[in-house]
Amino acid sequence: MKQPDIEYMKRALELAELGRGWTNPNPMVGAVIVKKGRIIGEGFHQKHGQAHAEINALNNATEPVEGATIYVTLEPCSHYGKTPPCAQAILISGIREVIIAMEDPNPLVAGKGIRILQEGGISVHTGILEKEAAQLNEVFLQYIQTKTPFVVMKTAMSLDGKIACHTGDSKWISNEGSRAFVHELRAQLPAIMVGIGTVLADDPSLTCRRESPSRQPIRIIVDSALRIPMDAHVLNDECPHLTWIATVDGKDPEKIQILEERGIPVLQTRSKDGKVDLQHLMELLGQRQIDGLLLEGGGTLNFSALKAGIVNKVVSFIAPVLIGGKDAPTPVEGEGFSSLAEAIALENIQIRRFDDDLMMEGRVKHVYRTD
Amino acid sequence: MKQPDIEYMKRALELAELGRGWTNPNPMVGAVIVKKGRIIGEGFHQKHGQAHAEINALNNATEPVEGATIYVTLEPCSHYGKTPPCAQAILISGIREVIIAMEDPNPLVAGKGIRILQEGGISVHTGILEKEAAQLNEVFLQYIQTKTPFVVMKTAMSLDGKIACHTGDSKWISNEGSRAFVHELRAQLPAIMVGIGTVLADDPSLTCRRESPSRQPIRIIVDSALRIPMDAHVLNDECPHLTWIATVDGKDPEKIQILEERGIPVLQTRSKDGKVDLQHLMELLGQRQIDGLLLEGGGTLNFSALKAGIVNKVVSFIAPVLIGGKDAPTPVEGEGFSSLAEAIALENIQIRRFDDDLMMEGRVKHVYRTD
Repeated sequence: MKQPDIEYMKRALELAELGRGWTNPNPMVGAVIVKKGRIIGEGFHQKHGQAHAEINALNNATEPVEGATIYVTLEPCSHYGKTPPCAQAILISGIREVIIAMEDPNPLVAGKGIRILQEGGISVHTGILEKEAAQLNEVFLQYIQTKTPFVVMKTAMSLDGKIACHTGDSKWISNEGSRAFVHELRAQLPAIMVGIGTVLADDPSLTCRRESPSRQPIRIIVDSALRIPMDAHVLNDECPHLTWIATVDGKDPEKIQILEERGIPVLQTRSKDGKVDLQHLMELLGQRQIDGLLLEGGGTLNFSALKAGIVNKVVSFIAPVLIGGKDAPTPVEGEGFSSLAEAIALENIQIRRFDDDLMMEGRVKHVYRTD
Repeated sequence: MKQPDIEYMKRALELAELGRGWTNPNPMVGAVIVKKGRIIGEGFHQKHGQAHAEINALNNATEPVEGATIYVTLEPCSHYGKTPPCAQAILISGIREVIIAMEDPNPLVAGKGIRILQEGGISVHTGILEKEAAQLNEVFLQYIQTKTPFVVMKTAMSLDGKIACHTGDSKWISNEGSRAFVHELRAQLPAIMVGIGTVLADDPSLTCRRESPSRQPIRIIVDSALRIPMDAHVLNDECPHLTWIATVDGKDPEKIQILEERGIPVLQTRSKDGKVDLQHLMELLGQRQIDGLLLEGGGTLNFSALKAGIVNKVVSFIAPVLIGGKDAPTPVEGEGFSSLAEAIALENIQIRRFDDDLMMEGRVKHVYRTD
């Protein structure tokens, strides 16, 4: 065979990206069919429950695919899920060669798709732009392997590390471009998580104001003592069923009953020092198909989340303004780590500018677990 | 005439830059002599008290300069200072045309150099790369107009806004590249300023560890209550005369006498709420030829400096690590501004990366004065 053409895989990754925010908890996948040096079919996984990328590419092909090569960003599936297995469809199609960016770590697939193809006499190559493909599906990869959501901690602060003035004034530290991008993030992940402190202080709506949202995110309120006021905005807007309360097992059964009668699920976790056990909460969320969430906590919840080791990625906006104040709140508070050796280091640092605001993002290097 | 060639002015600016850290309180200046489309002489102001750029370029010319054009980054001087006026030297040289990046705001020059040239029949053009030239000499321009130093506030923090753990551990938040650049900054400005809190907590040396330092900076300790221990490092190393103490007028005359007997100047300022009046201190430093300083304060001094309106520029290093802690120190503390409207906004934002550390710098947009 010829060398796999990296440009076709780039195109497949671009197609995959078009599904962002719509496929969860499925991965984003793109596929390109190439024959005699020309693309004759393209497709991507558009929405959870709908056809996979390979099937869409086959259906979109503008000429017969016999003898063609298909580039696909993730190993074709081998199992009957909501759709029949793609490996089978490729076999039947007459395609002769399959180029795959990365194997599917899903235990239901994990090499079986590739074996089906090879046993059918198809030439298979893997590992083309594998790093890019893994990056694209970081949420899916974490979820499929741990059954807990990929947690992105988002913060926004001044250049002296404050999230508000000591008086509470915080509108707006970040500029419009930064805030618009936060709404993008909210549209890309199925849930937002905040602490009860944020609800009590700001009574936020936590909706996604993007113009064409794929869907509104689930709003998870960490409320260890079940203090949420029944007149809170998130319990009374047009979508209260999207609000889930996380509390400690055994708290206020009457209030739980009232909330659930209003269609608001209450997740009860084990207690960790009297508070919601965040690791347990992540397991409960995973069971409910939440594959990723945006943590928009205050300093207390953010520190608890870092200490519990549930944070995978940090996205931080920094605005060129100085606020000052020993008592002004900062993005991560709580007790704090006692030494730099214990502190949470980030890697794979990416920088982006939104006018004069800066965004720094990175993956948590070693998840620090306290137990 | 032909259009001034921007490339020659760029070269003159590059030459000027070579004097950084050596010319204070003079400006950095570069000059390029061009004849028949070729550079025939280059020069820059190398060191305070030595020849100006134009003279060096004339002296370095490899062929007669009659009929040539000189590109110079600042208006040639018209007064007898430590050297004879450059405008006169250009007139005598036979140069026919002078291209100037910007006029000299120095009241001793301010257009007079240009007039001397024009009255001598030389063609003069100004404003070529003026913005770049002003940026190059931001320290000089502030000093010549206000007689107070250009103050650069430098901070280094984690991505959650901490300058140390709650335990005090801060070695090292920034990486080696960032720390090396701080030593560059120290070499570029004639003084460093810290608060007594930093001396009491860290007993720092505050020297410039760059391999070939232009000179060691003056170390200014803001010590309102004159608490400095006589065994502090800055009073006992090989250059105690480079330590200047700033205190409130009338404090502890005996201690002042002991310090001055050891060759350590004590600057006494007016009191501002019982503390050193930083605006007054800047006037005193200006009188002593300090045209710029690097403020490496803790949160208390940094806030006082911002509130006093003495800060011109902020250089902030941000490291991709999360420390947490409600009690962990942050770069700017004190009382803090009460609203975002009062907060210090920056402009002309520049971003630079040192591996995974980020540096954001900006000019203070509107200096906020409290009186």
